[in-house]
Amino acid sequence: MPILLDLDHAPSLDELLSATDTTGLEWRLSAAAGRTLPRIQGLGTLSSAGATEISFLANPKYQSQLPGTQAGAVIVSPEVEQALAAADGTGEGACAATFARVVCKNPYLLYARVAQWFERARRPAACAAVHPSAVVAADAVIGENVRIGPHCVVEAGARIGANSVLGPACIIGAGSAVGADSLLHARVTLYAGVTVGARAVLHSGCVLGADGFGFAPDPAQGGRGAWGKIPQFGGVNVGDDVEIGANTTIDRGALEDTVIAHGVKLDNQIMVAHNVRIGAFTAVAACVGIAGSTTIGERCTIGGASMLSGHLTLADDVHISGGTAITSNISQPGRYTGVYPYAEHGDWQRNAAVIQQLGQLRRRLRDVEKK
Amino acid sequence: MPILLDLDHAPSLDELLSATDTTGLEWRLSAAAGRTLPRIQGLGTLSSAGATEISFLANPKYQSQLPGTQAGAVIVSPEVEQALAAADGTGEGACAATFARVVCKNPYLLYARVAQWFERARRPAACAAVHPSAVVAADAVIGENVRIGPHCVVEAGARIGANSVLGPACIIGAGSAVGADSLLHARVTLYAGVTVGARAVLHSGCVLGADGFGFAPDPAQGGRGAWGKIPQFGGVNVGDDVEIGANTTIDRGALEDTVIAHGVKLDNQIMVAHNVRIGAFTAVAACVGIAGSTTIGERCTIGGASMLSGHLTLADDVHISGGTAITSNISQPGRYTGVYPYAEHGDWQRNAAVIQQLGQLRRRLRDVEKK
Amino acid sequence: MPILLDLDHAPSLDELLSATDTTGLEWRLSAAAGRTLPRIQGLGTLSSAGATEISFLANPKYQSQLPGTQAGAVIVSPEVEQALAAADGTGEGACAATFARVVCKNPYLLYARVAQWFERARRPAACAAVHPSAVVAADAVIGENVRIGPHCVVEAGARIGANSVLGPACIIGAGSAVGADSLLHARVTLYAGVTVGARAVLHSGCVLGADGFGFAPDPAQGGRGAWGKIPQFGGVNVGDDVEIGANTTIDRGALEDTVIAHGVKLDNQIMVAHNVRIGAFTAVAACVGIAGSTTIGERCTIGGASMLSGHLTLADDVHISGGTAITSNISQPGRYTGVYPYAEHGDWQRNAAVIQQLGQLRRRLRDVEKK
Repeated sequence: MPILLDLDHAPSLDELLSATDTTGLEWRLSAAAGRTLPRIQGLGTLSSAGATEISFLANPKYQSQLPGTQAGAVIVSPEVEQALAAADGTGEGACAATFARVVCKNPYLLYARVAQWFERARRPAACAAVHPSAVVAADAVIGENVRIGPHCVVEAGARIGANSVLGPACIIGAGSAVGADSLLHARVTLYAGVTVGARAVLHSGCVLGADGFGFAPDPAQGGRGAWGKIPQFGGVNVGDDVEIGANTTIDRGALEDTVIAHGVKLDNQIMVAHNVRIGAFTAVAACVGIAGSTTIGERCTIGGASMLSGHLTLADDVHISGGTAITSNISQPGRYTGVYPYAEHGDWQRNAAVIQQLGQLRRRLRDVEKK
Repeated sequence: MPILLDLDHAPSLDELLSATDTTGLEWRLSAAAGRTLPRIQGLGTLSSAGATEISFLANPKYQSQLPGTQAGAVIVSPEVEQALAAADGTGEGACAATFARVVCKNPYLLYARVAQWFERARRPAACAAVHPSAVVAADAVIGENVRIGPHCVVEAGARIGANSVLGPACIIGAGSAVGADSLLHARVTLYAGVTVGARAVLHSGCVLGADGFGFAPDPAQGGRGAWGKIPQFGGVNVGDDVEIGANTTIDRGALEDTVIAHGVKLDNQIMVAHNVRIGAFTAVAACVGIAGSTTIGERCTIGGASMLSGHLTLADDVHISGGTAITSNISQPGRYTGVYPYAEHGDWQRNAAVIQQLGQLRRRLRDVEKK
Repeated sequence: MPILLDLDHAPSLDELLSATDTTGLEWRLSAAAGRTLPRIQGLGTLSSAGATEISFLANPKYQSQLPGTQAGAVIVSPEVEQALAAADGTGEGACAATFARVVCKNPYLLYARVAQWFERARRPAACAAVHPSAVVAADAVIGENVRIGPHCVVEAGARIGANSVLGPACIIGAGSAVGADSLLHARVTLYAGVTVGARAVLHSGCVLGADGFGFAPDPAQGGRGAWGKIPQFGGVNVGDDVEIGANTTIDRGALEDTVIAHGVKLDNQIMVAHNVRIGAFTAVAACVGIAGSTTIGERCTIGGASMLSGHLTLADDVHISGGTAITSNISQPGRYTGVYPYAEHGDWQRNAAVIQQLGQLRRRLRDVEKK
């Protein structure tokens, strides 16, 4: 499981591989001689796939599952194929004959490409239309073959690129734009002044373009401690091929745009504050908070539940472990970590007590050393 | 306060207790002889309840509030009742006569049950209907006595169980299902392929079934560092009696389902990544992030703002303190903690400086010990 | 950039300053003699503003950008003006002549006020109306000059104050109220029983009034470990001049209200649990979680991604650094910090190992000291 196509519509293994986009990948089929290639209805893990599904072995730790798999086909590395072929020769590893082997140096990527073929194959035929309950401004520019779901609102001057799909209840603010071939799931909100590139995937509940959190102390607004609002005039500028997760928020800039470069992938419940800039191909896991005006380089990865202070600069190719608080600039590529180790509660209590005395501990050590 | 029913519709204390579901609980009334039992219009704390409200004493630290309470009735433990009765005898504790006493070994649970009775009593009479602005697919299966609010969207093949209520602007994706007697507050989003059990309570802004965060490095998607999407074909499977908080997100599985077992309670703004499995009766406080493929046992509690790394296994009956980062498996029941102690800023600076030299500190200590 | 008004509608610098609300601020113009004051179309940073834009210098670290700025006018402090005037005298600093100088002791606040003028100036003329797709209960009380956007739902007995604006798809629960002059961006959700004051700004996806997370162990709900719900009867009470960020959630109280006092500013993705009380003018940055029944004083600031445990009391004028876990009461004003320092991954591994042995480290040090 999951079975994605009826048996009648399922391609045979060789048809599937021919239809798959394998740009940049080399692969070959290594089925037992004379064996009929299976029809492939879907994909599965080694432990769950059945006779009409294709699986893959990318992580050596799952290799022990290979002999027992019921999969009709498995994508394997040349090294694994060699081991399987050797087993064929000895007559051992009877398993080897039970599934067709697809050999590729990068089994995980070939699996991804096959999965993408299935994703397209089972997508419902485009019925380009604007649902009658949608409210679309007269001067909005709607591209060819666009679908706009029920209860959507597309405000004045907004533009939706060709072939894009707006799920139910999406809101596109005045003058905002979505590029071609984009998919907005239900209930995506773009304020006015937000630009999203082509081939975007935006998930439910994400909000692009809310005001950055900008206030100046202003006693005239009610007395000591009161705040005056700094209006936020910048926009949000999102490049091509960006995916943004559910309930993620990206605030508009104060004077200039908040910028998400092309190819960036953002998971759910991420907070991107005003004037942040995220470089191309950087991937950010869920629950990360990025404070205002911080710039992140290209090809970075930020682990889940990390937080970045404001006004920082992170170089390209920086990798932050989950749960880390980044409070100063990082100018060198590399991996950075700061998650605090947990323990059984009693042990933690003892350690926490010492942490609060660390300065004193160092002083005592120095005293001892002097003796 | 709060007053929940008009005086005309309010039951007397004994009527209220008879009407309350007290399964598994023993209780008795201990009012002063000859005293008329009060009508009960609502519930309140010891310090806020009035003469037509019922209160409770569950936590000994509030016991000092008992003599001064204005409540018409108070649920107390047998121990507290004994103390009150003793005071009755001595003529001291004049307070004792001012409220009727309901005696129960578990005052908090009896209070919860009474509150549940009020919740049902003031619920508006069901006017089963589909609001004319809702968009419901012709082949959706709508159970008996279902209410569907304004601007809802129920897509093809979706199923809504009997007596369930969809608040305004809920979206039920194609083929998804909600069990009987469930309550979806406004603006709940279920993608396609999501199953929710009976008696669910889903709060506004929660999103079930967005894509898991799955990408493989794929230079063919735009060059060095580019990502190829791994389509997410699994669903989300939520058991019976589950409550899910506002703006919580539960991603669909990659190949298999993300699973939330029966009786699980999730607070607001929780992130549950793809392929996570949460065991029955586990309760998770707000702002927790659970990374992909992690399995949590039954009857666990996870404190607020904790984070769990991916691919972990936590045993049954594990209790995680708030603010803890769990980065490895936990095979034993117990309480685990890792929150980093705070301090006045100056003290913190000194301690933080030492933390960065801890390895060195240990080395120096070893040197001293050798002498 | 950004240019906010057409040149035809742009005021000259002196017109702009006269039109700006400068309550509590002193300012003066110091343009080169005989120089024509520029028309001002918008605002910009020193590095981005052009000849028809006004900029400001509030932070000394940007002072080096002053000579090169293309801005038509710059708001500067008296000290900076003095330095510029001195440069005028010597003939150095040719830059000084290129922009008009507005002198004010608080350049940032004057900039904020000018920005607020632009914000009002470009706001579209109010076309008070209820969009035909909105569903407004017959007994809702809608003030004068209110705008209600497409697909809004205003339930029975709700009240919307004069001049307020509801963006698309807002939901106002039964009996809830929004004060005058408030702005609800798209997709704001108020449950029943929520009161919001005047001049509120509520951002998309925020949810006010979802149930607090209250459960009591109740085996009758399905066996060992099962939970019984504690109905949440309190409301949410939000004062005047409050701003609430995108996807922030504020739960209703159990028996009494959750209270957000006037002038409070909440950023995005904040979680405020039931019965929390936040004092006037307190500002909370994004991704903060505040657990149930905690009381925060007035004029506090809470840094991003901090978490506060439940049932705490924080004094007035407490400042919490970002990423800090507050687990006990704070009775003194001041700054409190607890963010754990990060390091290169290898260094972190060494330090983390020592942290887990801190109790032992202290013991060893004591042993050494005794010798």
